[in-house]
Amino acid sequence: MNDITVLEALKQALRRLPGVGPKSASRMAYHLLERDREGARTIARALTDAVERIVHCKRCNNLSETELCPICSSNRRDKSLLCVVESPSDLVSLDQSGVYNGMYFVLMGRLSPLDGIGPDEIGIPRLEALLDEGSIKEVVLATNLTVEGEATAHYISDLVRARHIKATRIAYGVPIGGELEYTDRNTLARALAGRREA
Amino acid sequence: MNDITVLEALKQALRRLPGVGPKSASRMAYHLLERDREGARTIARALTDAVERIVHCKRCNNLSETELCPICSSNRRDKSLLCVVESPSDLVSLDQSGVYNGMYFVLMGRLSPLDGIGPDEIGIPRLEALLDEGSIKEVVLATNLTVEGEATAHYISDLVRARHIKATRIAYGVPIGGELEYTDRNTLARALAGRREA
Ligand SMILES: [Zn+2]
Ligand SMILES: [Zn+2]
Repeated sequence: MNDITVLEALKQALRRLPGVGPKSASRMAYHLLERDREGARTIARALTDAVERIVHCKRCNNLSETELCPICSSNRRDKSLLCVVESPSDLVSLDQSGVYNGMYFVLMGRLSPLDGIGPDEIGIPRLEALLDEGSIKEVVLATNLTVEGEATAHYISDLVRARHIKATRIAYGVPIGGELEYTDRNTLARALAGRREA
Repeated sequence: MNDITVLEALKQALRRLPGVGPKSASRMAYHLLERDREGARTIARALTDAVERIVHCKRCNNLSETELCPICSSNRRDKSLLCVVESPSDLVSLDQSGVYNGMYFVLMGRLSPLDGIGPDEIGIPRLEALLDEGSIKEVVLATNLTVEGEATAHYISDLVRARHIKATRIAYGVPIGGELEYTDRNTLARALAGRREA
């Protein structure tokens, strides 16, 4: 049976998806091959398209199909406000709360010295360059309310205040230890409205 | 944000995987784009390869890279024994038990009249043609020990005995309601050794 190398390769490949172990991978492979080959082709195409066409916005670092993302190139956004988030999905969650209309910076991570993730790994030099442009009057620190997210917020707030820019932290409306991505939009709206000096 | 159509398309596509809801799909998409783009390419290639190269063996109906699968084209197998299973993964589980060295027929499903799955949908005509060749002396019914698996086994055992061929059912070593795929190989070996007339 081990002659079926293409099938084995597919099972192995599917295990690169987060949360997918050997049994799930096997179930997925058989499902696609036995019942949804068009789905397999659709997923393959979508992955290839995404990898080829999605880049990082050169200003905010968010995932984008264009060099400058729609938010950064919009002229209906408040350029004096900059909200710092850990991930693209956090950005989406906050933006959908409807109470924030400023700019963003996406760290694509958080400080985690034990994992070797320092300031350079989360784009801090680029964030500092943005702050030095002089147009930003307030930085809203919207990293997760976890231990690492708090440490990241403290680290950035020092950089912000050293430039005499106001630094605020989203309020503890988000449950402690909670992830922004899984927080409902009303809670996020309250957390943003209740932001305080960091 | 809804401008990122390529990203949305990827999330939608990943939801075609069994057991993957909107949140998992989103997490998978971001993981691949932010941390494992090579993984995304690998999965895309593996899916395309599998869909292009894996066909059904024209004899046993199992997934195969060749017209005739390695088991059907082997000359070290007992051609007088035919084991009928629901799925390719059931076949792998049984074969790895090490006590069976006959041929297989893979139904790619089970009888389920309420879902519109009748004899034609699970390849019964092809199975009958195999039986009519005259070389098979015993059919081991190894469908799952679920209600539908039992009904399928009964249905096939009638066809088998009408041709004066011995029909056996794997023993209740497999837990009732259990799936072969998730049964350990010792239990499967006992179940095979203890098979009885069906
Ligand atoms: Zn941007
Ligand atoms: Zn075969």
